[in-house]
Amino acid sequence: MSSFGKLFRVTTFGESHCKGVGVIVDGCPPGLQLTESDVQVQLTRRRPGQSKLTTPRDEKDRVTIYSGTELGYTLGTPIGLMVSNTDQRPNDYSNAIIYPRPSHADYTYLEKYTLKATSGGGRASARETIGRVAAGAIAEKYLKEAFNIEIVSFVSSVGDISMYPTKIEEYPKFWELINNVTREQVDETEVRCPDPDYAEKFRNKILETRGQHDSIGGTLVCVIRNVPAGLGEPCFDKLEAQLAQAMLSLPATKGFEIGSGFAGTAVNGHIHNDPFVMKENGKLGTTTNYSGGIQGGISNGETIYFRVAFKPVATIGQAQKTCTYDGTEGELAAKGRHDPCVVSRAVPIVETMSALVIMDNLLIQLSRQAATSYLKKDNIPPVLVGKLPPQTENDA
Amino acid sequence: MSSFGKLFRVTTFGESHCKGVGVIVDGCPPGLQLTESDVQVQLTRRRPGQSKLTTPRDEKDRVTIYSGTELGYTLGTPIGLMVSNTDQRPNDYSNAIIYPRPSHADYTYLEKYTLKATSGGGRASARETIGRVAAGAIAEKYLKEAFNIEIVSFVSSVGDISMYPTKIEEYPKFWELINNVTREQVDETEVRCPDPDYAEKFRNKILETRGQHDSIGGTLVCVIRNVPAGLGEPCFDKLEAQLAQAMLSLPATKGFEIGSGFAGTAVNGHIHNDPFVMKENGKLGTTTNYSGGIQGGISNGETIYFRVAFKPVATIGQAQKTCTYDGTEGELAAKGRHDPCVVSRAVPIVETMSALVIMDNLLIQLSRQAATSYLKKDNIPPVLVGKLPPQTENDA
Amino acid sequence: MSSFGKLFRVTTFGESHCKGVGVIVDGCPPGLQLTESDVQVQLTRRRPGQSKLTTPRDEKDRVTIYSGTELGYTLGTPIGLMVSNTDQRPNDYSNAIIYPRPSHADYTYLEKYTLKATSGGGRASARETIGRVAAGAIAEKYLKEAFNIEIVSFVSSVGDISMYPTKIEEYPKFWELINNVTREQVDETEVRCPDPDYAEKFRNKILETRGQHDSIGGTLVCVIRNVPAGLGEPCFDKLEAQLAQAMLSLPATKGFEIGSGFAGTAVNGHIHNDPFVMKENGKLGTTTNYSGGIQGGISNGETIYFRVAFKPVATIGQAQKTCTYDGTEGELAAKGRHDPCVVSRAVPIVETMSALVIMDNLLIQLSRQAATSYLKKDNIPPVLVGKLPPQTENDA
Amino acid sequence: MSSFGKLFRVTTFGESHCKGVGVIVDGCPPGLQLTESDVQVQLTRRRPGQSKLTTPRDEKDRVTIYSGTELGYTLGTPIGLMVSNTDQRPNDYSNAIIYPRPSHADYTYLEKYTLKATSGGGRASARETIGRVAAGAIAEKYLKEAFNIEIVSFVSSVGDISMYPTKIEEYPKFWELINNVTREQVDETEVRCPDPDYAEKFRNKILETRGQHDSIGGTLVCVIRNVPAGLGEPCFDKLEAQLAQAMLSLPATKGFEIGSGFAGTAVNGHIHNDPFVMKENGKLGTTTNYSGGIQGGISNGETIYFRVAFKPVATIGQAQKTCTYDGTEGELAAKGRHDPCVVSRAVPIVETMSALVIMDNLLIQLSRQAATSYLKKDNIPPVLVGKLPPQTENDA
Repeated sequence: MSSFGKLFRVTTFGESHCKGVGVIVDGCPPGLQLTESDVQVQLTRRRPGQSKLTTPRDEKDRVTIYSGTELGYTLGTPIGLMVSNTDQRPNDYSNAIIYPRPSHADYTYLEKYTLKATSGGGRASARETIGRVAAGAIAEKYLKEAFNIEIVSFVSSVGDISMYPTKIEEYPKFWELINNVTREQVDETEVRCPDPDYAEKFRNKILETRGQHDSIGGTLVCVIRNVPAGLGEPCFDKLEAQLAQAMLSLPATKGFEIGSGFAGTAVNGHIHNDPFVMKENGKLGTTTNYSGGIQGGISNGETIYFRVAFKPVATIGQAQKTCTYDGTEGELAAKGRHDPCVVSRAVPIVETMSALVIMDNLLIQLSRQAATSYLKKDNIPPVLVGKLPPQTENDA
Repeated sequence: MSSFGKLFRVTTFGESHCKGVGVIVDGCPPGLQLTESDVQVQLTRRRPGQSKLTTPRDEKDRVTIYSGTELGYTLGTPIGLMVSNTDQRPNDYSNAIIYPRPSHADYTYLEKYTLKATSGGGRASARETIGRVAAGAIAEKYLKEAFNIEIVSFVSSVGDISMYPTKIEEYPKFWELINNVTREQVDETEVRCPDPDYAEKFRNKILETRGQHDSIGGTLVCVIRNVPAGLGEPCFDKLEAQLAQAMLSLPATKGFEIGSGFAGTAVNGHIHNDPFVMKENGKLGTTTNYSGGIQGGISNGETIYFRVAFKPVATIGQAQKTCTYDGTEGELAAKGRHDPCVVSRAVPIVETMSALVIMDNLLIQLSRQAATSYLKKDNIPPVLVGKLPPQTENDA
Repeated sequence: MSSFGKLFRVTTFGESHCKGVGVIVDGCPPGLQLTESDVQVQLTRRRPGQSKLTTPRDEKDRVTIYSGTELGYTLGTPIGLMVSNTDQRPNDYSNAIIYPRPSHADYTYLEKYTLKATSGGGRASARETIGRVAAGAIAEKYLKEAFNIEIVSFVSSVGDISMYPTKIEEYPKFWELINNVTREQVDETEVRCPDPDYAEKFRNKILETRGQHDSIGGTLVCVIRNVPAGLGEPCFDKLEAQLAQAMLSLPATKGFEIGSGFAGTAVNGHIHNDPFVMKENGKLGTTTNYSGGIQGGISNGETIYFRVAFKPVATIGQAQKTCTYDGTEGELAAKGRHDPCVVSRAVPIVETMSALVIMDNLLIQLSRQAATSYLKKDNIPPVLVGKLPPQTENDA
Repeated sequence: MSSFGKLFRVTTFGESHCKGVGVIVDGCPPGLQLTESDVQVQLTRRRPGQSKLTTPRDEKDRVTIYSGTELGYTLGTPIGLMVSNTDQRPNDYSNAIIYPRPSHADYTYLEKYTLKATSGGGRASARETIGRVAAGAIAEKYLKEAFNIEIVSFVSSVGDISMYPTKIEEYPKFWELINNVTREQVDETEVRCPDPDYAEKFRNKILETRGQHDSIGGTLVCVIRNVPAGLGEPCFDKLEAQLAQAMLSLPATKGFEIGSGFAGTAVNGHIHNDPFVMKENGKLGTTTNYSGGIQGGISNGETIYFRVAFKPVATIGQAQKTCTYDGTEGELAAKGRHDPCVVSRAVPIVETMSALVIMDNLLIQLSRQAATSYLKKDNIPPVLVGKLPPQTENDA
């Protein structure tokens, strides 16, 4: 359904052509400084019409906070946010009415609900993500202020052009990149890739595809740094499981991998295992990071990274052979506005969606930490905390 | 946490070395014939000690139903099931106490909970999956009896040896396989691959790895057939999002892809889109299936298929350089029982976990279908159901 | 938190003096005819400024539907609704800032959230109920159209003047009332009591109280008719348990009783038990209804009725001795707008909140019914369905 | 359904005559000392066969912990507990098969599930409460050790004999009682009333009722002391709303009131409001406690107290006129074991169920407190924390 999270609970509404899209954020910590401009940044990064790489649909996407804050601070009560749909198109009684668009959600929505929105993608539109982005922007602000947690996503491939490591020996260089990359670096290129050479290749590929009235897929990397060890709720709500759900809930996504992912399946355990070492901050860390910052479903303090696959956009200008809802064969060609490739605009969506996952898990773990801190631990057997019991004289 | 699902709600308990592991299944439809032998089948396929490809830990894993059935029928009340841990090992105060095993959950559990089970994997053990498998076996039985839904998983790669399509032109042959493969075919080989040639290669790879006291990863395909169109709950609980969460919640998984997945990102939209066509049963279908049976987060009636990545098992016999909980560097070599490769035993786990997802979504959609069926629909505007409005005389 | 329900899931936002209050209704059956006027009716019955019995705060409370419908039909997607706060008062830096109002939520909100809204009741304001009422109005419409379920609430006592049965022999006459009472009858009097004599007494009591710058409590009865047998989800989500939660979640409520309630505790079982009888519709019914339409947490097909206690409004014009947040003793007298008695305005709130409970339970039970209907039941042992097994020849 | 709570999440299973009844406790803080004897105490207080006031069904109700603890400490993982049903009766094909017992759940279970357990109350049996009591006993232990929270319930009325205040002037003496009453005092009498005179009256009433082969209702008071201010999650999960749900989910309950409850509705606001005063511990308190320790749905630090109504037990020895499932009129007389009055055995059930509510709300509030503590609060406007802004020079 349209809610996400347990303690930081987000509920969204809105279709592509209704009066507005929005979100209620329930459970935000009280006392966080928050104004609309804090939320607007990621909405603006997400919005269409930013460059010639994206759809020309021009929505200002100005957000209004309706509740939950006063004098610039969150009250701890539900925060209601909304963005008006300024670009509501009138229905045009065209082919779009009678043809389910191939690889779109038109057909499945009609099967599921017995009726469906008449124009655009309805609830399946990428416009639905506005609510998530607004909510995630609030989560990001808290995570940064309270825990210095940084989330950065960037484009790692477009079509068959990829900067992602495919061999095990390429990972160390990649870890160096993800431990340092910033949003500023990512936003330096229109396509949102921190490597200028690849950015140029990606851009050319997208422009070429647009010229062909076609679309192309791609992948994003997302990096989450400074996450404290201990987040994630086994056995069903492991941290990577929640991240996977979050990413696969985004429009057009087809795959998710954490750490070494699919490539890691080809490797032997003696290489893949991440050895422990004591770090300068007095905590254990690992010398490699094939695990992707999560072990046993719980963050280990290392950088979390994962990759998300986005399929080629279903809407293309080329004519496609298909059939109508009642089975009449025919041809359909899109006239609407669409992106040839969604990955660049998906960057803030992936970041904010990640923030929702981390935020919710952080709140749950803060509860556990606080609860256990009230208990006396003097007599806990050493073996329960990773220590050998003290030797008695009889042992000697 | 340890619950999964909304209407078919599963809650598990148990660590590797406690008295028992089990599950409560809440929300099972009443009137389903069910005895312990129905559940035992998948538990037996899952259990260790089946062949020389798997761990020699010998657990009979006999399940007992404690509640929720009478005279062989489900009552609709919670079904309590338990498997005793017959192979409870005494704690041995060895290196395992003071060393967090690399790429295991020892360290993260201690960080999360401030104390942890002393031996084996505790809650992070694969033994935790028994509860899921038992619950999923019940779901499978319902799905088969009531909707003829079939779920088959098989091993698609071990290490770098793979039978999975990597190029777009290989998919049609693959679709033929997944539309027909049966559990019987899968179980014909010890390694659980329906292609005898690959099965042999996989087997050799595993035995070679075992000989090196090492481990190796692999991938599984899972196929779900005869799922009615309409399952999945956008926007956060899209069907593929729930499947992704379900799979990434399994021990040792690192990746998930649905349909064309990561490979599909390299393809153009005009190829990747699945054209619609009227099928013999009077419903729309698609002539290709890059979507993997799900569009817009909702099943479309085609075969659902996805792939899951399992990392090389973390426990290996070789000595590994690492450090103790307090940072002292040293070497750790596993003496315990372990699989060199988990994919074969993971087959029933992936199947039953998939069944939990489908079952829960089916129950929710059945509610929606029933609820909307009580409403009069005579005057619904045609455009809301994919039809053009009737032309009036004035149009002429 | 601010969500309610599992399948018909309602999430509200809004404080007394923010920009707007509203709700997202997730899970509404698709195909329901719905426009703003359907929702407005109950909002208008709830709103202040209706009569001299209620607060003069004059809010038009016009609702706007932002999403989830098209061409007057629900799409099955989340319905976003909002009412603007047209009467936003500027903060006045008076006693209200430094004094927690006795028996209000000022102090507890500050303790809970570490900061709080500056004026009015914030989230604890009765204005928060607008979202519930809007959502419940949608539920009511479905319940009426699809199942002819009728929900009527009315005032049963004001102060110590009560029309509610206190002795066991008064119940039959009361059952006659509740089996027939309509909203039209209730709304004939300003005070919303279907008995004109009591309505007059209640009115006089309220006016007298207002004259004393004081407040007074009262009780409401709520009746739910035509609920099919089978609703309610034991063991924790019994129907009366959910109704109790729903009612006690309303501002100013202090008690809930179902059926014979507290009075029934004084009675013997042989009187209190409701004997079964076959009804004309071919279903079992009961000849008395001390159970209040629910047995074992599940509706039995009889009229559901319960009573709710509302305390005297905390805000009174009289000066009260109390202390400031920092403990300085002093006097506080309310200058704001307030009701001397909330029960009349609470009528639509209790009705719509009841509708939310019934709606959610209905959707869950529809799923169960549908799911079990797909199973073959030919061989179910007779004792499982309340029948004796057929006698065999050997029995003779 | 059969789960309760968000962070301290309890899931129960078991019918009256299956192999066992039990519970999974998910989310228990790690590091709590816990053995079976900690849980057994309340199970033993609950179990039948304790005295001639209760049913002679003799169940030892010995609990076993199957998971979630090691070496006497909770691990933070799910705790599985079970009690065997040692007194499983064979089915007797008697009247009980074909007659739905009046005011029992037989009929409604059959309507809901289409089939039902053949003997005893099935899932509607009071035996179902064993899981709750076991889980609540764990919660109680944590609450006592970590926060010194004390929960005491006692019998306040049997039939029409009541020790509960009915007039406003009787409350101060009652508050004195509830601020001091202990479980030891309660258990001094078989009937579990701390007032010896009333205990004797209650006992006589119950014995008299038993002699008449009849049953009688009664009420319980429950007191929760030392709850920190700030617990409860408006707007739907107000603390009293959750307590109401918890209590009304218990078998045989018909009413709930918090603080002054129904009696308080007859009172004027100027009397009913609880004035604030600074307490010795530096926190605000109230000089009266008509609110019952909760204001605006949030605990205020004062003693929480509420009252619960239990109807006369439906099972009585006297013959009752009723009809069979197929409508044939006849007489039914119970032969089984039953309590003439449930209130004494309900004492530990009400206590432990209350503990579940407090525990869950405490864990959620601990999260909020921890989360907000990481934010800088230097510049928060004074009016948001109940203070006047400092006067500037211009004000002079």
